Amino acid sequence: MIPAMYICGTGNVGSALLELFRQNNIIISGIFSRKKSKIYTDIPVLEYGKNTPSEHAMVFICTPDSYIGETEKSLGKGNFMVVHCSGSVHLDVLQNKQKGVFYPLQSFTKNQEVDWLNLPILIEANNIEVEGILKKVVNTVGSTPVEATSQQREKIHLAAVIANNFSNSMYHMAFYLASKSGFSPDLLMPLIQQTVAKLAYASPAENQTGPAKRGDTKTLQRHLELLKNEPEIKEIYQILSNYISGWEG
Amino acid sequence: MIPAMYICGTGNVGSALLELFRQNNIIISGIFSRKKSKIYTDIPVLEYGKNTPSEHAMVFICTPDSYIGETEKSLGKGNFMVVHCSGSVHLDVLQNKQKGVFYPLQSFTKNQEVDWLNLPILIEANNIEVEGILKKVVNTVGSTPVEATSQQREKIHLAAVIANNFSNSMYHMAFYLASKSGFSPDLLMPLIQQTVAKLAYASPAENQTGPAKRGDTKTLQRHLELLKNEPEIKEIYQILSNYISGWEG
Repeated sequence: MIPAMYICGTGNVGSALLELFRQNNIIISGIFSRKKSKIYTDIPVLEYGKNTPSEHAMVFICTPDSYIGETEKSLGKGNFMVVHCSGSVHLDVLQNKQKGVFYPLQSFTKNQEVDWLNLPILIEANNIEVEGILKKVVNTVGSTPVEATSQQREKIHLAAVIANNFSNSMYHMAFYLASKSGFSPDLLMPLIQQTVAKLAYASPAENQTGPAKRGDTKTLQRHLELLKNEPEIKEIYQILSNYISGWEG
Repeated sequence: MIPAMYICGTGNVGSALLELFRQNNIIISGIFSRKKSKIYTDIPVLEYGKNTPSEHAMVFICTPDSYIGETEKSLGKGNFMVVHCSGSVHLDVLQNKQKGVFYPLQSFTKNQEVDWLNLPILIEANNIEVEGILKKVVNTVGSTPVEATSQQREKIHLAAVIANNFSNSMYHMAFYLASKSGFSPDLLMPLIQQTVAKLAYASPAENQTGPAKRGDTKTLQRHLELLKNEPEIKEIYQILSNYISGWEG
């Protein structure tokens, strides 16, 4: 059985969990939030210090990484379970007797829908009851539970930063250069989409194309010339080309 | 009217064009290929030196960038049009009187289907007849013609290398780290797909999340520690984090 649920924080992750739980008829007993302006007509907004989660409830801490410990303290003492949602924070940052981690391997932005179906959610718990409830929640929302220790989780989090934040920074760079040359960045979208679609059929190493991969030094040199007024991008171009050309060596 | 078409080269681009033209009932009069083993039951395979394109035909040179000039020479002289398909090669590398460029802004890998619908194809020509035919071909296959000079084209090609080759190198890096930590790289796919899907709603700058964006030095430091045995990836992590954190400064 899924117990009474509480959510702390109404940022990107908190808001996403709130929506997710509502859509799946998981009852949220309250939201702890410092921002009193937030109004959810059907869910009580609670105050740290004044309110306490009910007995046997599960509290999802969705505040920024560096506030997780503090948020837990603000909940006060009681016989409830505490779970955080961070990729990089150790389970032991939590002091509660019954504690866990619920880390969806996804990037959340407010007001953008997330497809939770089959989404890997990394879970960790210090006891079997918390673990069972977390698995139950993951299954109820249609995602995929993946058990991971804190050590493993921080490694997949690092990989996720590269897969998501760094690939997005490549889009940023490419869009900037396209715009600067008088083109709409939209022109690059089919290429970007195809790059991802190809991963369904082959590994990134097999899919790699381009001047660095084929050792086309003439084009590499020309690109570096074109970037002579963009020293930061030029340095990134150089180092990533070296990285790519080194795969086979 | 679309004239008789010839294709030189049966690599990734040549094969893709061949398929594209066949699917759209554009008749290919012959394929110039050094690899005699290739057999297309319905299309003549021609030999450089022995065969010559017919009068008023259009020849698509799909050989590697550094061979484009040589391939053109091998065709011999005649009253036909010559077009190359490269992003970075200047139109003037071609010596023919009637010449052009047909550069699909896409990455081709053999045996992987390409969605040509609305795909931007950059075209350039030294006369109105070639330009008209190229536009006609682009429209016939459902793609979008984009006029670009050689100078503009090499700039969008540079942006395309970053958008495609470099983002793919991020997938390579992330997959490598995930595998090394005992996870299936498939776990990262929803995140990668979402990163691209978000571009439909907001710019890469608006979509950016992660430790570098939010100035989370603790996580950044920890990630660099985790990468202590991967000096190349560590350097890339550092430089890309600097790039991302500099967007607002």
